[in-house]
Amino acid sequence: MLILPVEPLTRQAFSAFGDVMEADPSHQQYAINAGTSQRFHDLATLEPGEGGCLIVSIFRAQPRQLPFKVSMLERHPKASQAFMPLNGKPFLVVVAPQGDSVDPAQIRAFLASGQQGVNFAPGTWHHPLLALDGQSDFLVIDRDKPEDNCEECVLAQPLQIESFESSYA
Amino acid sequence: MLILPVEPLTRQAFSAFGDVMEADPSHQQYAINAGTSQRFHDLATLEPGEGGCLIVSIFRAQPRQLPFKVSMLERHPKASQAFMPLNGKPFLVVVAPQGDSVDPAQIRAFLASGQQGVNFAPGTWHHPLLALDGQSDFLVIDRDKPEDNCEECVLAQPLQIESFESSYA
Repeated sequence: MLILPVEPLTRQAFSAFGDVMEADPSHQQYAINAGTSQRFHDLATLEPGEGGCLIVSIFRAQPRQLPFKVSMLERHPKASQAFMPLNGKPFLVVVAPQGDSVDPAQIRAFLASGQQGVNFAPGTWHHPLLALDGQSDFLVIDRDKPEDNCEECVLAQPLQIESFESSYA
Repeated sequence: MLILPVEPLTRQAFSAFGDVMEADPSHQQYAINAGTSQRFHDLATLEPGEGGCLIVSIFRAQPRQLPFKVSMLERHPKASQAFMPLNGKPFLVVVAPQGDSVDPAQIRAFLASGQQGVNFAPGTWHHPLLALDGQSDFLVIDRDKPEDNCEECVLAQPLQIESFESSYA
């Protein structure tokens, strides 16, 4: 079976797929509330899509075991979808570029630290949540009526993510 | 000095001020992604306000010490503002009802668990972030151009929040 390597998640590496949401020192930031808080400002391009509006939800994800077979991806063609981990633990993000279907050669896997969230641009192919370390809650910002905004693509040949040494504690 | 008692945060107690965002078993929820995740759906009334749009940011809050003097509140008249803790630790939420100024007799303080966020309805008076246990990051969903959407009210007489035994581990 083909192996899907796991890369570290960075803004630059992820830029074709959407945004990385994190308190990155290089991001636009400023002090607020008499200096008691620092605002890392406007971290993602939230896109409700035509006629839609943004809502906030919590997804409670069950953990996956490695090695893991990636056998399908999904996309939300109308709008963006943002995920922020609430338990501070690393998780996997599997994506492929926008397009009518998934190009298997362009699928990539990233390891997000527990302090990084992702925002998928509209139409970005992505695997459903891949929590690794116990049941994991994520804050999710997406379009209302999500049931009208989801398409799936089953891969002709699954890819495998193998066990790896996490670079995060 | 007048003492401001600390109440547990519940949806019902907070309903005059906005929403509590949490994976409450009684909230609308359903299984997604072949049962690997549970979606706690649409937890807050996000309100960008006329001509505004919603953005997502991270606020990094410095912790406060108890006893703490509440000497001012602020409000965002045009739009809602949502805060979700990212470190799983309890924090304080101090609010007063909408109105041209703060009625000191109606100020209330709530202790949020580390699994609860809050969304202030437009115009709800509230204290800036009150983290308690170390530097604390919060995901924030609010209106773009926040600098044009903030008013402050200094209290004639501060209220004091005293040290308390947290009911959360």
